[in-house]
Amino acid sequence: MATISLSSDLFTLVNVFTVAPEKQRELRDHLVRVTEDLIRHMPGFVSANFHLSRDGEQVVNYAQWRSEADFRAMHADPRLQSHFEYCRSVSRPKPIFCEVTHSFNAASPDGA
Amino acid sequence: MATISLSSDLFTLVNVFTVAPEKQRELRDHLVRVTEDLIRHMPGFVSANFHLSRDGEQVVNYAQWRSEADFRAMHADPRLQSHFEYCRSVSRPKPIFCEVTHSFNAASPDGA
Repeated sequence: MATISLSSDLFTLVNVFTVAPEKQRELRDHLVRVTEDLIRHMPGFVSANFHLSRDGEQVVNYAQWRSEADFRAMHADPRLQSHFEYCRSVSRPKPIFCEVTHSFNAASPDGA
Repeated sequence: MATISLSSDLFTLVNVFTVAPEKQRELRDHLVRVTEDLIRHMPGFVSANFHLSRDGEQVVNYAQWRSEADFRAMHADPRLQSHFEYCRSVSRPKPIFCEVTHSFNAASPDGA
């Protein structure tokens, strides 16, 4: 379970991978495996949350890191370069580096 | 605060609005106002989480509803049609209807 919150001050990356529907699950499985084996053990990792779009055309990772520096260190790790190459070979990744500014919850709205 | 979890069985919508950077905050403010005034009071609303991309080119809403039917009812509400028109006039919305399938957390991974 991950939490989305204004107060956590995390580095957030929403990565939208556009993929051929017949490759959607293969790509998701690959992302999950690399996260399980390597990424989640790296310094500053907070969460990774994988989503399958209903139309089959996207895999979305909602990812959180302690800091941008931690994310950049992960991204430069030589062990992960073949992983990134694979992702680019089967999909078009669109990384959106962003910041939570408002969060509304049915139970406890804190969007002000 | 919202939570991303496998077990919650929610209807999840990641809406990526591509926007001219000079309109990014205006669009975000509009989305926040409509959520505050109307959407968060509607049946089945669980959460809405607004993000600004660092490059200025996107606003991302990570939204959760109790069910697809609740989301569709909101979307058909006549009071919201001018809101959707405004969004389409200043941005290119890309709604991704999706399902969380794996969630890894630094503290308690549950991605299996």
